[in-house]
Amino acid sequence: MIYLDNAATTVPDAGAVNAALQYLQPQGFYNPSALYRAGFAAHKAVEEARKTLLSLLAPRGGYELVFTGSGSEADNQAIFSCAHRGNFVTTAGEHAAVYNTAKELEKRGVEVRFAPLLPDGRVDAAALLSLVDKETSCVSVIHVNNETGAVNDIAALSAAVKKINPSAAFHSDGVQAFGKIFFTLGQDIDLYTVSAHKIGGVRGVAGLFRKKGARLSPYIFGGGQENGLRSGTENTFAIKQFELAAQKKFSSLKEDLLRVRSFNAAVRQGLDKNIFRILSSEEASPYILSVSADGLRGEVLLHMLDDAGVMVGTGSACSSKNRYSRVMLACGLNERAADGVLRISFAATTTEEEVSRAIPIINSCAAALAERTK
Amino acid sequence: MIYLDNAATTVPDAGAVNAALQYLQPQGFYNPSALYRAGFAAHKAVEEARKTLLSLLAPRGGYELVFTGSGSEADNQAIFSCAHRGNFVTTAGEHAAVYNTAKELEKRGVEVRFAPLLPDGRVDAAALLSLVDKETSCVSVIHVNNETGAVNDIAALSAAVKKINPSAAFHSDGVQAFGKIFFTLGQDIDLYTVSAHKIGGVRGVAGLFRKKGARLSPYIFGGGQENGLRSGTENTFAIKQFELAAQKKFSSLKEDLLRVRSFNAAVRQGLDKNIFRILSSEEASPYILSVSADGLRGEVLLHMLDDAGVMVGTGSACSSKNRYSRVMLACGLNERAADGVLRISFAATTTEEEVSRAIPIINSCAAALAERTK
Repeated sequence: MIYLDNAATTVPDAGAVNAALQYLQPQGFYNPSALYRAGFAAHKAVEEARKTLLSLLAPRGGYELVFTGSGSEADNQAIFSCAHRGNFVTTAGEHAAVYNTAKELEKRGVEVRFAPLLPDGRVDAAALLSLVDKETSCVSVIHVNNETGAVNDIAALSAAVKKINPSAAFHSDGVQAFGKIFFTLGQDIDLYTVSAHKIGGVRGVAGLFRKKGARLSPYIFGGGQENGLRSGTENTFAIKQFELAAQKKFSSLKEDLLRVRSFNAAVRQGLDKNIFRILSSEEASPYILSVSADGLRGEVLLHMLDDAGVMVGTGSACSSKNRYSRVMLACGLNERAADGVLRISFAATTTEEEVSRAIPIINSCAAALAERTK
Repeated sequence: MIYLDNAATTVPDAGAVNAALQYLQPQGFYNPSALYRAGFAAHKAVEEARKTLLSLLAPRGGYELVFTGSGSEADNQAIFSCAHRGNFVTTAGEHAAVYNTAKELEKRGVEVRFAPLLPDGRVDAAALLSLVDKETSCVSVIHVNNETGAVNDIAALSAAVKKINPSAAFHSDGVQAFGKIFFTLGQDIDLYTVSAHKIGGVRGVAGLFRKKGARLSPYIFGGGQENGLRSGTENTFAIKQFELAAQKKFSSLKEDLLRVRSFNAAVRQGLDKNIFRILSSEEASPYILSVSADGLRGEVLLHMLDDAGVMVGTGSACSSKNRYSRVMLACGLNERAADGVLRISFAATTTEEEVSRAIPIINSCAAALAERTK
């Protein structure tokens, strides 16, 4: 089987899993809040991981990191902390963890303003900024769109937002960017979400980077772990495995990017142009390539590909229950085209051989389906 | 080293870890929301785990189970879902995940009523029920107190609460009860929190049992996993490991209980009565034994024991930053006695040999400290 759905989840890095297993075993499983030495050692291990991750994403300092249980939790915490008054400005291209949090805010009476997307899935920057005003409490813009791979220039956007309203908090969901594209946190980004399991980490841990002094309230109340900002016994195993997976991913970020770019280019070139339209722009993150087989049902094609040995997604795995991707429609696709979307996504573990085997399979399945659909 | 702080966390069951590792590996790491067969297999594995856990705690049916990221998250979700209007009734003996959520509710303008404790740490039932009225939206009573092991009769309490106000939701934090004492969910308990890592499960997963039809709102919004009630990619590895650890724990619940009871009795009997006062009652869960070395500092004693090869807690690990345990004070201890509290807690993995070695070590460390303190 060829796995090309790495934007949904990645296989945990086996070396990082093996190295972190000690935290599930008698030598290292202790509660980091416990006062005896083994507890303190677990605490130190968590703090080391925090330092490592901060050094990767905020090498110039000025940031803290709160470990959460998932990227969704981090997005919820960021937005509910900052967007409880005035208006909340976000985009039509957000992951469900931001989009549905925004919808919940609307239900609670907060005004939510959704900025439209450009055809490639980036937010229309001028439109976004026109929505920001003195009453805006928070702006949230996804860094790399999880369906098209479109990269929003969040450094520029956050600076422009702060110019209009210096007290508006700027949050970005960086789950599909972290460890994949070159980026470090700049001074105008207050809160930034990352997740372990998209870069070879395990599930059960994610992170919310917080500019020092930026507004952030606890979202899970309890024992006061994570400096009072996220209660619950620290998931030492997952945190350490995340640290190691991230270190590895960042150390090969450039080579991975070049390799994945070549995979992306090969698929772009190799897909049958009579069937597939490429939706992702050339400037998108090469890790994600969305295409549409106009007139075909993406879900049917997905199952044919599965039978033929290739696993891909249709839009976001999180919204796989909906026939049409909200984000694809916001990119301007009609329902017929949105119905035929496939998301092909790569990882550092993807091989050239897998990609070259996958291309003809995708083409022949699509051709067979097109034949059947005629 | 002898580990007697199992109420803080337990070593993950190695067999369950090994069996679940496949969900971190190429054969099983897939996103359960993905539409191809490997994704569906991961989904089925999660549903199997849900069914197993439901069969253990709610064998007569009538309940659902929502997987969360931690016991604290489950407590927060339960209480914030139910206690947003009228008054919220709880006890002075709650774990911080309930207690600090109650404090947050107070800040948000909800009236919170704390029922007092009996000296052994159980809630004063008559006092609790006198606080419940027609305006009560939610009652939350810890099942097994995490500091004294005191067992609240939540079946009787929930029935009595429903008699006063049938529309009040009844929640219980069962983290220290689940898999340790005989109990199945009865009809008057609406929401019940359990956690994996207290019974040989790994961190990163916990559960909220919900009586069918009981009020429960999502707390983390996003992709709509867990039937819309808890978004975030399912932590398949942790969920499966939890299933296996729970199955094992429940299958030996009776033998474990007998063995742990004998450990508890041995410590009760073996501790130097001139130094230690037993705080936990004979009716408490035998997994937790709290004692006080009146006039000694528990934290100093803890470090001496650590040096001598025995790990114990002082009150709850989660509140280890506070000198005096809020719960111990609520049990009526004065500060001098509360300062000298040690929590000795057992697991199925504790051996008789460890217990018999620990007793003289605890006695001699306490005697040495008493000598120094004179």
